[in-house]
Amino acid sequence: MAETSHLLSVGDLKSLDTAATGRPFASLLVLKKLAAKTAANGNPFYSVELGDRGGSFNCTVFGDSPVFETLKDAGEGAVVRVEGKVEYYQGRFSPRLGKATALSETELGAPGLLENLVEVAPEDSGQLWSEFNAFIEGISQAELRATVRAVVDEIGDDFKWAPAAVAMHHAYRHGLLEHTVHMARACRALLPLYPEVDPSLAMAGILLHDTGKAIEYEGTLSTKRSRRGILQGHVVLGYQLARKAAIKAKLDADRVERLEHIILSHQGEPEWGAAVYAATPEAVFVSMIDNLDAKMGMVQRALRQANDANEFSERLPGLSSVLLTRPPGA
Amino acid sequence: MAETSHLLSVGDLKSLDTAATGRPFASLLVLKKLAAKTAANGNPFYSVELGDRGGSFNCTVFGDSPVFETLKDAGEGAVVRVEGKVEYYQGRFSPRLGKATALSETELGAPGLLENLVEVAPEDSGQLWSEFNAFIEGISQAELRATVRAVVDEIGDDFKWAPAAVAMHHAYRHGLLEHTVHMARACRALLPLYPEVDPSLAMAGILLHDTGKAIEYEGTLSTKRSRRGILQGHVVLGYQLARKAAIKAKLDADRVERLEHIILSHQGEPEWGAAVYAATPEAVFVSMIDNLDAKMGMVQRALRQANDANEFSERLPGLSSVLLTRPPGA
Amino acid sequence: MAETSHLLSVGDLKSLDTAATGRPFASLLVLKKLAAKTAANGNPFYSVELGDRGGSFNCTVFGDSPVFETLKDAGEGAVVRVEGKVEYYQGRFSPRLGKATALSETELGAPGLLENLVEVAPEDSGQLWSEFNAFIEGISQAELRATVRAVVDEIGDDFKWAPAAVAMHHAYRHGLLEHTVHMARACRALLPLYPEVDPSLAMAGILLHDTGKAIEYEGTLSTKRSRRGILQGHVVLGYQLARKAAIKAKLDADRVERLEHIILSHQGEPEWGAAVYAATPEAVFVSMIDNLDAKMGMVQRALRQANDANEFSERLPGLSSVLLTRPPGA
Amino acid sequence: MAETSHLLSVGDLKSLDTAATGRPFASLLVLKKLAAKTAANGNPFYSVELGDRGGSFNCTVFGDSPVFETLKDAGEGAVVRVEGKVEYYQGRFSPRLGKATALSETELGAPGLLENLVEVAPEDSGQLWSEFNAFIEGISQAELRATVRAVVDEIGDDFKWAPAAVAMHHAYRHGLLEHTVHMARACRALLPLYPEVDPSLAMAGILLHDTGKAIEYEGTLSTKRSRRGILQGHVVLGYQLARKAAIKAKLDADRVERLEHIILSHQGEPEWGAAVYAATPEAVFVSMIDNLDAKMGMVQRALRQANDANEFSERLPGLSSVLLTRPPGA
Amino acid sequence: MAETSHLLSVGDLKSLDTAATGRPFASLLVLKKLAAKTAANGNPFYSVELGDRGGSFNCTVFGDSPVFETLKDAGEGAVVRVEGKVEYYQGRFSPRLGKATALSETELGAPGLLENLVEVAPEDSGQLWSEFNAFIEGISQAELRATVRAVVDEIGDDFKWAPAAVAMHHAYRHGLLEHTVHMARACRALLPLYPEVDPSLAMAGILLHDTGKAIEYEGTLSTKRSRRGILQGHVVLGYQLARKAAIKAKLDADRVERLEHIILSHQGEPEWGAAVYAATPEAVFVSMIDNLDAKMGMVQRALRQANDANEFSERLPGLSSVLLTRPPGA
Amino acid sequence: MAETSHLLSVGDLKSLDTAATGRPFASLLVLKKLAAKTAANGNPFYSVELGDRGGSFNCTVFGDSPVFETLKDAGEGAVVRVEGKVEYYQGRFSPRLGKATALSETELGAPGLLENLVEVAPEDSGQLWSEFNAFIEGISQAELRATVRAVVDEIGDDFKWAPAAVAMHHAYRHGLLEHTVHMARACRALLPLYPEVDPSLAMAGILLHDTGKAIEYEGTLSTKRSRRGILQGHVVLGYQLARKAAIKAKLDADRVERLEHIILSHQGEPEWGAAVYAATPEAVFVSMIDNLDAKMGMVQRALRQANDANEFSERLPGLSSVLLTRPPGA
Repeated sequence: MAETSHLLSVGDLKSLDTAATGRPFASLLVLKKLAAKTAANGNPFYSVELGDRGGSFNCTVFGDSPVFETLKDAGEGAVVRVEGKVEYYQGRFSPRLGKATALSETELGAPGLLENLVEVAPEDSGQLWSEFNAFIEGISQAELRATVRAVVDEIGDDFKWAPAAVAMHHAYRHGLLEHTVHMARACRALLPLYPEVDPSLAMAGILLHDTGKAIEYEGTLSTKRSRRGILQGHVVLGYQLARKAAIKAKLDADRVERLEHIILSHQGEPEWGAAVYAATPEAVFVSMIDNLDAKMGMVQRALRQANDANEFSERLPGLSSVLLTRPPGA
Repeated sequence: MAETSHLLSVGDLKSLDTAATGRPFASLLVLKKLAAKTAANGNPFYSVELGDRGGSFNCTVFGDSPVFETLKDAGEGAVVRVEGKVEYYQGRFSPRLGKATALSETELGAPGLLENLVEVAPEDSGQLWSEFNAFIEGISQAELRATVRAVVDEIGDDFKWAPAAVAMHHAYRHGLLEHTVHMARACRALLPLYPEVDPSLAMAGILLHDTGKAIEYEGTLSTKRSRRGILQGHVVLGYQLARKAAIKAKLDADRVERLEHIILSHQGEPEWGAAVYAATPEAVFVSMIDNLDAKMGMVQRALRQANDANEFSERLPGLSSVLLTRPPGA
Repeated sequence: MAETSHLLSVGDLKSLDTAATGRPFASLLVLKKLAAKTAANGNPFYSVELGDRGGSFNCTVFGDSPVFETLKDAGEGAVVRVEGKVEYYQGRFSPRLGKATALSETELGAPGLLENLVEVAPEDSGQLWSEFNAFIEGISQAELRATVRAVVDEIGDDFKWAPAAVAMHHAYRHGLLEHTVHMARACRALLPLYPEVDPSLAMAGILLHDTGKAIEYEGTLSTKRSRRGILQGHVVLGYQLARKAAIKAKLDADRVERLEHIILSHQGEPEWGAAVYAATPEAVFVSMIDNLDAKMGMVQRALRQANDANEFSERLPGLSSVLLTRPPGA
Repeated sequence: MAETSHLLSVGDLKSLDTAATGRPFASLLVLKKLAAKTAANGNPFYSVELGDRGGSFNCTVFGDSPVFETLKDAGEGAVVRVEGKVEYYQGRFSPRLGKATALSETELGAPGLLENLVEVAPEDSGQLWSEFNAFIEGISQAELRATVRAVVDEIGDDFKWAPAAVAMHHAYRHGLLEHTVHMARACRALLPLYPEVDPSLAMAGILLHDTGKAIEYEGTLSTKRSRRGILQGHVVLGYQLARKAAIKAKLDADRVERLEHIILSHQGEPEWGAAVYAATPEAVFVSMIDNLDAKMGMVQRALRQANDANEFSERLPGLSSVLLTRPPGA
Repeated sequence: MAETSHLLSVGDLKSLDTAATGRPFASLLVLKKLAAKTAANGNPFYSVELGDRGGSFNCTVFGDSPVFETLKDAGEGAVVRVEGKVEYYQGRFSPRLGKATALSETELGAPGLLENLVEVAPEDSGQLWSEFNAFIEGISQAELRATVRAVVDEIGDDFKWAPAAVAMHHAYRHGLLEHTVHMARACRALLPLYPEVDPSLAMAGILLHDTGKAIEYEGTLSTKRSRRGILQGHVVLGYQLARKAAIKAKLDADRVERLEHIILSHQGEPEWGAAVYAATPEAVFVSMIDNLDAKMGMVQRALRQANDANEFSERLPGLSSVLLTRPPGA
Repeated sequence: MAETSHLLSVGDLKSLDTAATGRPFASLLVLKKLAAKTAANGNPFYSVELGDRGGSFNCTVFGDSPVFETLKDAGEGAVVRVEGKVEYYQGRFSPRLGKATALSETELGAPGLLENLVEVAPEDSGQLWSEFNAFIEGISQAELRATVRAVVDEIGDDFKWAPAAVAMHHAYRHGLLEHTVHMARACRALLPLYPEVDPSLAMAGILLHDTGKAIEYEGTLSTKRSRRGILQGHVVLGYQLARKAAIKAKLDADRVERLEHIILSHQGEPEWGAAVYAATPEAVFVSMIDNLDAKMGMVQRALRQANDANEFSERLPGLSSVLLTRPPGA
């Protein structure tokens, strides 16, 4: 693959002006949207959105372009190396693409590559993954531990990469893993204070509560809801994952029902997606920790993106407010 | 069993006054509530609610009464033949029970007996059941037909007896069967008008949409939510019933997902209990027919209970209104 | 009139680029918006939106242009044949118009012409109109039949052309007629199942329930709310139409009140526009059929607009969801 | 009629205890509820609620009692002089009635009589009525003045007696008149400050805005919603009254529409019963004055009922709060 | 004071029946409500509610009774030793009181006395108080520590006794102290996980967030909202307490504002009482811990009150659900 | 300063087209937004929004431009005289600035200058200010008068200039003063009609109710929420201003509490920002007058901006409606 040092980012491309029309360029980009359309003359074409971490642009690829088939095969969410010429349509950057190559999974593993393309959880994903597995091993009730293990065996990789949300909290690569590990840490810290909560059930519930999102969201680099996500929702998908694994792990019927209940109720209110209201100590506990870490995750992301020039962040929809980003006494 | 002609109804008992104190009586009643309590002296006693179709009354049964064990074994929802003496507590009818016998399932089958004890669907339940089975047979897609059949084989009897709700529409014995058959009739009538709706999927969805209620509600004669009903809700319970049966019936994956989706979305809005919004033509169709027949079921019940002296019914919570019960031009 | 074969559609015009600046063109377009403004120098000008079924564009027409008076006389919603030259303003297509002629009502009747300009109900409007009239004739109660006839005599043509909504369901030419006929078909199919519903009242209620929209919406080809629509709303306007016609038809007072009530309550909830909650069997029935067909109309339109490349439609606001547009087993 | 000095009030009767059983008494009472029922033996009887300003009690009147026909003829809301004997049923005062006579309208006019039976507006109703008529005469636009006059000619007496609400503000005899006059006073005071408001339209709108309530509520002394009130609501009823009168008074079409609009929109929000949102200066103005005086009416009533021993009133649902009833500095 | 062994509890009194009429008794009770009324003859009397932990009853005390003045002086919330005779009014226990003595604060301190009269926090209040003070000492930022100390110096005793709510969570004696200490424990456990949260600010915010409730609720043994509580609410009252103390403690302006903000925003949403949305990391953190511990406090109380005979608790309004009270695997 | 006759307004600049590229110009503009950013090469630059009453445009100012420091020192909300050359970026007007000078406060006072830059209250601000002070002098209770005077002494100038809102009613320069004076006029007009309202308290409450907005909004010419506004909100800020002033003025405790309560409750409902519900006659009265004048202020502004060509205004969010802007009978 060509040296990335010669590749222009979206920011670079957008800093050009119309004087650059016709200039050749190469870039490494995520195929964010690929919408098939038909021209007035009946010919197929694609309306394409390409982007990296710094933004995105749109262009059109006609059916007779060699790029057409490459993008079609690669699909939304693929990472492509494109070459093209600078052009403008209605005053907006809209290049003519001459060549496109999709990167393989192996190529995607190159150090630093993904970080330029998408927002990634700030903690190291490898360490988060180890910690996640250590939390599984720490569950003392054997069948609950085996249940969580069985779910992770089934959806582990998707879980590892998924964001925790499309738009609200932890909405970035590995965000789901990060949010789950953060909740597990909070759970461990709080369990001594709430002895009425069964530790194994609460921890298993936390580790599994959002696993349905590994199915609900699809695409490695563009996040959209899958068919199963639309038709069933992550709450029911996670319930089904847990149920199947629990039966396989021979978990007793009472705990199966309680574990399923934690997943079904963790969204809190029916209008936020809960199938039922939390009705066990563990379900109330998990639901509250989920809420706490989701909100604190929004705070943490806003602080990472904070700008010295502004005392407050942009408005954060999940908090219904801007956030003061300077530390006290600063 | 004693002739029912000598049994006093709740209405009969309440028409007595304190002059009747001490008079012996016998009645056939449903054990509606049985709450265990402990007296100041440490002795156990039951606060008991007994009733029939016309109302109910409360009384107390102490731990040393022979009635105590009978009621304990019978449990809430049982039908008991009681004998006792008329007494009043704080001006309210509150008899002293001397004897109680629980009826067997066989005895409950005696003609006309249940109708005196609980509200029953106005249509004959045997005919509703035959019609329900005929609707199953009428599903042309074989695996969908087999799926519905498998669910009904699993929960048929409970389904046949269950009310459609605790308090809103079709909230009476066989109400769930009646509501389902009414929806199937409406479905058959409307399918020719909406050709984009797949007939087999829609009919299977209707026949199964509320089957989770056969698990959510428990008790033959008193309706309350079961543990599984509280912890999972009828939507998820019905989804699970359908999923298991569909896999057994080897239904193709596409239709499994669509059938599950109809059940998961039939409540319409998340705040009314839907796991997801309806996102297939069949799911929208079933959800709307459910709403139509639920509301018309409230109308039909109010008309059955209408009283010549009043032009309007009592306020019907499900309609947010009273209902004009006289026919036009009357 | 010039041959339409040489007329460019909005899609054609938008596929041009700045290289075409200055090129003459002719198009047949709807005058969608006409906003009078005053330039800094005090001269009047119009900000104009012109469009067809495929989109729209904006341009400016100054007071000294011959086009100015033509557009002023034609008014919003008129169909105009324009000639002009391709120009761009701030990178957007914004032609300079040199000539404009408004089409007469007769010219608008030319086959296929309107279909290119606005979205039209998929069923033939002539057949819908015949079926609508047959439903009127099918009302057995004579005065109710005469009432419906009298309303249609008063607002028939507007009713025939109106959309059923500005933005939600059946929001296209003849959409109101189509929605009403679809409801009447559903009513006919369901009446045998709900014998407590008076057939004449229910059918008259359906045929009249939305007639106020023929007054609420105005403009043949652009839909906007009229002054009366803003100040009174279609519910009260329809009630008034029915009341006047019913008195003329000597309908008995009891049925007048019930018919008015169906119209006043058909929106279901006060926050959706109902003046009162439905409080008669017929009003509940009509309100539920309205809801059913409105939702199914959204489904039908999304299926018509479905695209082979996408499994799901765009998000449909009225369903709060995307829609799976492929048939089962496909 | 017997001297009222010997008549016992509900308070007097309730202060008796069971030792008084059998004692004869006479009272002047409002027939608040009259529910026809059928005893187990098939005989008709009435469940009766009788009351005065200080409370109410229930008793039973059987079909063979001479009182039965008297109450049936008198109907709910009548004032009756009853004679009977003190009895208790289940510990509650529940007399046996031996004789009942309904008062004529003339007898009802006896000074002080009604004040003992129902809550009455604190201002003199005769003076309020004069002031109301003076406000009509003060409308300078002649046709608007005639329109208001025509409505009042049609429903004047009912308007004069009606409460302004069943349960919220000004919910007492003459309350509607009082509230309307108070709003007219506020209108007169505020008009100089809001010159964009047309005085004649605003005043006519205020005088007519709630006239539909004279039809919506029925019964001289017990307030319940009439059939027309349930099926149409006071907003539409008032609109219809105004429309008919305006046409009779030859009011110009523009003002007819604006006057109707004030009535249709005065409830503010659709969920509070408005048919449309206020969209003229006069409609916004009237709606705000209505809200102001309704809330201040709740304050005034709470102050009238204030009790020296308590600093705060009971919770007032219309204010979502208790009210501090002592003056500042007290 | 008389030996408590001869005192009858409310439960004892209610287990009596009318046969006990006239029997003398003595009880130690809380004066829960004291409503001044005027009899028809103009004489003053009190409608009195007396109760203990097991329930309450009503009786009437006339102005010429020696008890009248005692109760008047004692006021709502006092603990009184009453002597009287068993009587019934309308079938309900309603004794005639002959003597009443209010207990002094010293007498109230007798071991075990209060626990019989009101619900008390399950943890020892002395230890909670020590732990609360240790949390103050643990605040490392000196001025924040001094600020918290100054508030506690001002309202400490009221704070120590107050419930955390009238009806929702921790609604019992010392409940506010208990809830605050529980939150402080959770804060200490979670701080290492959220390093962006300033420890001193968060802990000071938690210790002060609800101090306004020590003013909002009044009465040692009956909880009702004070005049200041009604007119200002605990959020503003707590803000004012903190502001005054912070200025006294010379806390820097930046931290004063942040501390005030935590108090002003801790209720989360404006409709739940927040003056503003949380807009600092510490405010989000405190608000989430408040929510977590409030919900877990409802769980803990329901578990304490659990009954072996019932698998589920009564419905808990704060959780919108019943709660499964048996531990897993039981 | 250069003659304003040669200065181009934003409207003038936007009427230019790309043919004017490179043309020099000078303008007097408000610095509406100034966002510090860092270019890919690490250099700082400002994204700048400049505007006047007729609109705004964006441009970029790099760190090495002499304009950079001027804008940095001036800050958002400053008025600057800029000179530059016409340029376009992506088809939008985006000039290159060569010179910028901030105007002094004295220069801002030049007649007519501000009116061209920002929307200003239609009434003369000097006269409004005199009237406002006369209302203060008219408060008969001396300490209340002194309290209002003390608040105005503290925040008078900010109060005089502030808008009453960022986006809803009276959202323009002096809007807060204008709204307050209008409310005071309405108060004076209505007080004779509601004698239960204490005139001094009500008037003081009105004059102070929104004074917190003088702190909540900052910037002379661009309105944004200040740090204190975000962290505390105008309700609490106004309460604090009044409290401090009242203590200084030695107002009695009862009136302090009532005055504070008016401010804390004037927003009506908690979800609209009220700290508590209005619970005194004066608080209900002030809250209702606030609502009345806020809505009428929206009406007045829409009428000022009305356009002969359109019968209705644009949709007014605060009224949830368009407004009919022609007078009746016109």
